[in-house]
Amino acid sequence: MRAKLHEIIFEADTATGKWFDIVLIWSILISVSLVLLESVERIENLYGSQIYAAEWFFTILFTIEYCLRLMVVKRPLRYAISFYGLVDLLSIVPSYITFIHPDSHYFLLIRILRVMRVFRVLKLAQFNKEGQVLLKALLRSRHKIIVFLGAVLSVIFIMGATMYVIEGAENGFTSIPRGIYWAIVTMTTVGYGDIAPQTTLGQIVASIVMLLGYGILAVPTGIVTAELSRGNLQPAGVADEISTQSCPGCGSEGHNPDARYCRLCGDPL
Amino acid sequence: MRAKLHEIIFEADTATGKWFDIVLIWSILISVSLVLLESVERIENLYGSQIYAAEWFFTILFTIEYCLRLMVVKRPLRYAISFYGLVDLLSIVPSYITFIHPDSHYFLLIRILRVMRVFRVLKLAQFNKEGQVLLKALLRSRHKIIVFLGAVLSVIFIMGATMYVIEGAENGFTSIPRGIYWAIVTMTTVGYGDIAPQTTLGQIVASIVMLLGYGILAVPTGIVTAELSRGNLQPAGVADEISTQSCPGCGSEGHNPDARYCRLCGDPL
Amino acid sequence: MRAKLHEIIFEADTATGKWFDIVLIWSILISVSLVLLESVERIENLYGSQIYAAEWFFTILFTIEYCLRLMVVKRPLRYAISFYGLVDLLSIVPSYITFIHPDSHYFLLIRILRVMRVFRVLKLAQFNKEGQVLLKALLRSRHKIIVFLGAVLSVIFIMGATMYVIEGAENGFTSIPRGIYWAIVTMTTVGYGDIAPQTTLGQIVASIVMLLGYGILAVPTGIVTAELSRGNLQPAGVADEISTQSCPGCGSEGHNPDARYCRLCGDPL
Amino acid sequence: MRAKLHEIIFEADTATGKWFDIVLIWSILISVSLVLLESVERIENLYGSQIYAAEWFFTILFTIEYCLRLMVVKRPLRYAISFYGLVDLLSIVPSYITFIHPDSHYFLLIRILRVMRVFRVLKLAQFNKEGQVLLKALLRSRHKIIVFLGAVLSVIFIMGATMYVIEGAENGFTSIPRGIYWAIVTMTTVGYGDIAPQTTLGQIVASIVMLLGYGILAVPTGIVTAELSRGNLQPAGVADEISTQSCPGCGSEGHNPDARYCRLCGDPL
Repeated sequence: MRAKLHEIIFEADTATGKWFDIVLIWSILISVSLVLLESVERIENLYGSQIYAAEWFFTILFTIEYCLRLMVVKRPLRYAISFYGLVDLLSIVPSYITFIHPDSHYFLLIRILRVMRVFRVLKLAQFNKEGQVLLKALLRSRHKIIVFLGAVLSVIFIMGATMYVIEGAENGFTSIPRGIYWAIVTMTTVGYGDIAPQTTLGQIVASIVMLLGYGILAVPTGIVTAELSRGNLQPAGVADEISTQSCPGCGSEGHNPDARYCRLCGDPL
Repeated sequence: MRAKLHEIIFEADTATGKWFDIVLIWSILISVSLVLLESVERIENLYGSQIYAAEWFFTILFTIEYCLRLMVVKRPLRYAISFYGLVDLLSIVPSYITFIHPDSHYFLLIRILRVMRVFRVLKLAQFNKEGQVLLKALLRSRHKIIVFLGAVLSVIFIMGATMYVIEGAENGFTSIPRGIYWAIVTMTTVGYGDIAPQTTLGQIVASIVMLLGYGILAVPTGIVTAELSRGNLQPAGVADEISTQSCPGCGSEGHNPDARYCRLCGDPL
Repeated sequence: MRAKLHEIIFEADTATGKWFDIVLIWSILISVSLVLLESVERIENLYGSQIYAAEWFFTILFTIEYCLRLMVVKRPLRYAISFYGLVDLLSIVPSYITFIHPDSHYFLLIRILRVMRVFRVLKLAQFNKEGQVLLKALLRSRHKIIVFLGAVLSVIFIMGATMYVIEGAENGFTSIPRGIYWAIVTMTTVGYGDIAPQTTLGQIVASIVMLLGYGILAVPTGIVTAELSRGNLQPAGVADEISTQSCPGCGSEGHNPDARYCRLCGDPL
Repeated sequence: MRAKLHEIIFEADTATGKWFDIVLIWSILISVSLVLLESVERIENLYGSQIYAAEWFFTILFTIEYCLRLMVVKRPLRYAISFYGLVDLLSIVPSYITFIHPDSHYFLLIRILRVMRVFRVLKLAQFNKEGQVLLKALLRSRHKIIVFLGAVLSVIFIMGATMYVIEGAENGFTSIPRGIYWAIVTMTTVGYGDIAPQTTLGQIVASIVMLLGYGILAVPTGIVTAELSRGNLQPAGVADEISTQSCPGCGSEGHNPDARYCRLCGDPL
């Protein structure tokens, strides 16, 4: 019985398991949409009570699901303190707290973290594999990205301070941190325009910052592309793939297709 | 007779067929330009009647062309419900409706869809092949792009909600959807500046969003580049090419150069 | 004598030829800077006469140079109607016209074209070769870029018209051309913020346009990168290099290192 | 004794050397943060004296460190006039000058250069190597980047002048340099919106500039990616790696792992 429930709740191999996942994804998406709508004052005033009712419906649904997950795994504590265990818990606790303490402003933020639960349910093999390829390329290039980010941040610091000295408080550059904020806005080519250089010298320095930001965008792109291209040349081995199996002991995922025991708690899969 | 007309209207192998295509492309471009000009109030007031007359001229021209296309193919219904058949129909219907119902505001939008007809006429072999290479690279990388888009949208949701909590309604972040709109504007480095963070904490979070948006642009670029480079390594086989032949039965296109029967209705090409 | 002058003026093989080139580049850069300064009203009021004198000095210098070039080549007319021959002429004519007709406003624009002369002088072998590699990669990928640009422009047209219908004149979208201008500003991630969507539906459509513009930036980058990478794999053959030789007959450039006769007029090099 | 101190101060091989480096990095980061905070008027008014005291603490710390570095190397003058020797000196001098001359506004800028000292301490082998790979790819592609930048700057000059003529002073384009500033802001897709085209013709030219800037971003990315990918294909040789050894004679770094003598002053390492 427990093994069967585990199959349904944690895995997506059986028809019932797939249905469970689809229902769960829709529940998550609808409940996140409710959080969005609740924050719009006009809608909250009109349909506040309906949203409140729906919120409670989904909270109870997710509570039942959380309890089932706890019951079904052999090591409930291990699941409870795992990353997704905490996300699962965080998606139900805020609603109970607002029952006692009605100011839900900050809890809206925590409730929106539910959106991350979609990823845990999305265990469709193809997407999982592609995500792994991307993650691996990013991981392999992390040293280069850190070096690049360090260099960019140094330039941003020095340019921000330079603009603070050149433009001064009367043109909106009231402090070095504000100059750094401007340098980030400019170098990433966002360009809000809330702070813009007014003096001739400031505009010359700003032009250099822009051309620099425009040009060095090539560097992270080059890093990631080179890693992804390198990945193409290697044959896709068995070790690259992961199964949709979930450990019945601790609920952990990401096991290799040929794995017969959980790599975290040693239980047979 | 019908076979000959089919050759001229649907294909670009003969001199007459090429002339037909060139005349059609110019008619489409001019009629789309008329839609643009009609929407400018000043020009509409001055030259309204001339534009109205020209619009009717092109509508009748496209109606004749549409009827010819229907007559020339063996299975008119099949053509009529195909994608390009519907685009062809949509480019003439709105003008007739405005004859009965004069408020053409919304029909301008449908009439501008005519611009898509250019692609159906542009069957010049070279461009068609290049477009296929691009489409294939995009198709092959669709799983990676969906995973990437999912991750980006989650970050945008969480960051938008965070800014709503930090900045609040007094700084323009009136609801979470509006925060999400700001997060999209910032992360894609568009940066209108209509909503911009005012508090120190908000500007720090915004800086992180910008650097993130600037950096992860590398990921889709890397994905597409790696796919396009991989395409370079493979020999361009016969199967990659498509002929400019169009099926005389249903008007469908995109047949292989060695195809002798339509892959959709089985008629000989 | 003429052969010697030709060596100095058109080529950069000898020491005198190199000196001539360096003096010419500095003259061009200074005279372009003068055009910039002349357009600044405050500087024009203060140093107007000095700038005027310097402008005449450079005009006479470039006139002498132009006459020398005409005298030194065997087919002066052929040089005069070549691309760089026209640029050379355009850099001196406007100054003489302003002598007769004093409103120099529009001629400032033509005089700034002098900046293009720098490229004709910059015949340093290394840069020339690198420029050739870039140009070739861009040329090889021109079909893909045209297909991409066509698709992007269609999306821009349709999105611009959609926003015109959704937002309407009261939110700044006064006509479809203006909507298209907004779509270009948004899709290229420039984002001035002079026109920004105000309605909820408009902001949703704008979000899609932004994500689209952010994502498809990957496509041209992928195209160019794949071409440049492909170039890396090929051995750099003799035919890829070009010499700094200039034809004594017509002044044309870009000859192969092993060329003994001008490919355009047949004169021995 | 001196050899031992040299090991600790200049290198990171021993445990003490690593501790020294970690303490130094934190001192640099904290002292840079103090400069940032000092520039914020509100914080300066509240905690001015504490920041002043902390600044003196770090200045004395860095002075002691600088003196130790001078004492420990065999050729102090050579170290003093090296790049990092000057950075080390510049990070302590401004504080002493403000003791005599209290207006610290401009010296804040020099003191923020301290952030560059982090790079000299960060000699962790892995990062150093990755930084080398990036630098080499950038160096190898410098000719292509210069050619590209030259072409872009020419387009920016010509477009800036064109917009000055089209839009004129009444729409914010008061001079050609200002038009060039606008062209840089637009072409790099920053788009502050402080100067934006108002006339129809100006908006058409601006659209071309935007599409150009959006498209040619592909070129530098392509250049850097192609270089980084080429680097992948080559085997990583010994010559590519550098050790964390620092010369006891002149304090210079970047020696090969198999180097036994300093390549700059000939001292044994």
